[in-house]
Amino acid sequence: MEQAVPQTFDRVLSSMCTRPHPVARAAAERFLATNPGDPETYRAVADLETEVVETLGELTGLDQPRGYVASGGTEANIQAVRAARNRASTDDPNVVAPSSVHFSFQKAAEVLGVDLRIAPVGSDRRADPEAMASLVDDDTALVVGVAGTTEYGRVDPIPELADLAAEADALCHVDAAWGGFALPFTDHEWHFGHAAVDTMTIDPHKMGQAVVPAGGLLARDAATMDALAVETPYLESTSQATLTGTRSGAGVASAAAALDELWPDGYRENYERAQANAEWVADALADRGFDVVDPVLPLVAVDLPDSLFAAVQDRDWRLARTARGELRLVCMPHVTRDTLSAFLRDLDACRDEI
Amino acid sequence: MEQAVPQTFDRVLSSMCTRPHPVARAAAERFLATNPGDPETYRAVADLETEVVETLGELTGLDQPRGYVASGGTEANIQAVRAARNRASTDDPNVVAPSSVHFSFQKAAEVLGVDLRIAPVGSDRRADPEAMASLVDDDTALVVGVAGTTEYGRVDPIPELADLAAEADALCHVDAAWGGFALPFTDHEWHFGHAAVDTMTIDPHKMGQAVVPAGGLLARDAATMDALAVETPYLESTSQATLTGTRSGAGVASAAAALDELWPDGYRENYERAQANAEWVADALADRGFDVVDPVLPLVAVDLPDSLFAAVQDRDWRLARTARGELRLVCMPHVTRDTLSAFLRDLDACRDEI
Repeated sequence: MEQAVPQTFDRVLSSMCTRPHPVARAAAERFLATNPGDPETYRAVADLETEVVETLGELTGLDQPRGYVASGGTEANIQAVRAARNRASTDDPNVVAPSSVHFSFQKAAEVLGVDLRIAPVGSDRRADPEAMASLVDDDTALVVGVAGTTEYGRVDPIPELADLAAEADALCHVDAAWGGFALPFTDHEWHFGHAAVDTMTIDPHKMGQAVVPAGGLLARDAATMDALAVETPYLESTSQATLTGTRSGAGVASAAAALDELWPDGYRENYERAQANAEWVADALADRGFDVVDPVLPLVAVDLPDSLFAAVQDRDWRLARTARGELRLVCMPHVTRDTLSAFLRDLDACRDEI
Repeated sequence: MEQAVPQTFDRVLSSMCTRPHPVARAAAERFLATNPGDPETYRAVADLETEVVETLGELTGLDQPRGYVASGGTEANIQAVRAARNRASTDDPNVVAPSSVHFSFQKAAEVLGVDLRIAPVGSDRRADPEAMASLVDDDTALVVGVAGTTEYGRVDPIPELADLAAEADALCHVDAAWGGFALPFTDHEWHFGHAAVDTMTIDPHKMGQAVVPAGGLLARDAATMDALAVETPYLESTSQATLTGTRSGAGVASAAAALDELWPDGYRENYERAQANAEWVADALADRGFDVVDPVLPLVAVDLPDSLFAAVQDRDWRLARTARGELRLVCMPHVTRDTLSAFLRDLDACRDEI
């Protein structure tokens, strides 16, 4: 077989993953052959997982964090819905979420057989607590908020959503899969310390610069993890709360290494640089007359004509769109000012040609 | 942070994972930063995944294989149950499986809200088609057989189970997560070419010597994958049939490299060496007067007194047990004759001490 070569990140503007930090990559290479799903056999990686959960607790205002390193945000979101379903007293549970929620909640609802009720967002593209309240009833098991939406990087009013959940005797989940490593350096109220949040998705393999797969599920209460546990015969450990069973030791070890290296100062620098880049490219696009959605977090959405989007994409940029069709520029750590300048030059050249 | 060190595999007799092949490790390192869950952004790894599925089709007698590289056997088994549930016409689906089935089916049933009906196995520790038939009814969506059971390495009578499924208008799933890379070199009837099997779990990261996580889900029909698909806004690909969304590019690339390097001759050599080792240690244990379950595949179960099990385990061997308490020796590629000899020496020494 000819040796396949992965592309570099040089022209990737579409991904919420990024070039891993060198310490994360090195740790992943050391732990490639381990399985944290079998903690008694693979003890070193099990200890690293405990460290990761502890540090994620520091990022998110949680003193005694429970949780684990998941395959990514999708697994963590499915598990949050599953825990809420299993803890609810109803036979017909529903989940109330804003329309900005990641599509993994559609998958979770389908897999788990719960009713997903979607409320429209406000004109600020954030969850509208009143619209969500109108969908909540006695069968509501979970209220979901997003801290850093996939499409526009918006932060929902988490304290109000947590209050709504508490009034309904439902759990509150925050999806900070992408935003969780930027938000500690902002004034947003988004985490366990700010509101009665029960569970959270926060992915080290996105802004945290760990290797894929290293997602994170956090829970305030042991009861949440208990609601996910199944017995494990023929493993020397006694129960397992994950969805996938076998998991990536490389991901766990890389997350531990990245957090140890970068929290908090390295992540602050990453965030500040990314946010400055996002604001710079947003201004540059607005100056060109395009309709730009301003970056609350390091993510810029911009309305381009379809023909222009296609022409730039043909110049070998990896681009993604919102459901409305806007170009999304995700300013991850690998996206430098030089990269964005090169992108703008190609955009200008394509515009001249069309 | 002090650099954590994973243990080597030298004293691991409990795991169904193994030391990855060097080509698999090298490929994993090249693809650590890729996500096959986003195939338009990460195209090279998406192509490798297609290769893996094609080659797994060769191993399993399937001309036009559908499927993907999953996080492991648990995800693949959950997905097989989910596809069967979604394709069934009943509102109250059940799954019929032998008691030897992996505990991931318990997890699948809990997650997916299906009724898992467990039939006792025969005295040969294999699925008993009559006992299973008595549990099948109009609501049966799936009949499960195991080709290489976790506890005793047994191969169920797959053609009879496939017939049972066909008669009930249910799907037939074969869990060959561990056995699938050994069985091609045996006379067992276990795969798509031998019977009307619909889906299969076969994990490159077990006997296939890929890195964790690289499990495999295969399907005969496109309809099975369609039953798993959800739409994917903001990815340039249009739908996603996996459970986890984000996935390990390292696992995919390592599976491609291992299959390219080892199929079929390398895997045949691995199997023959492992089987010979299993038979050798089984004989050695029987010679010492222990009650040994003979290895149909490279896995030996042996009844040890609890005190002896504990004493050997204290000598830093990683050991696992069956639900009945027997020691399971999984003769993976990393388990050499020297390793087994060292284990027997420690066993003898502990026996003398007790």
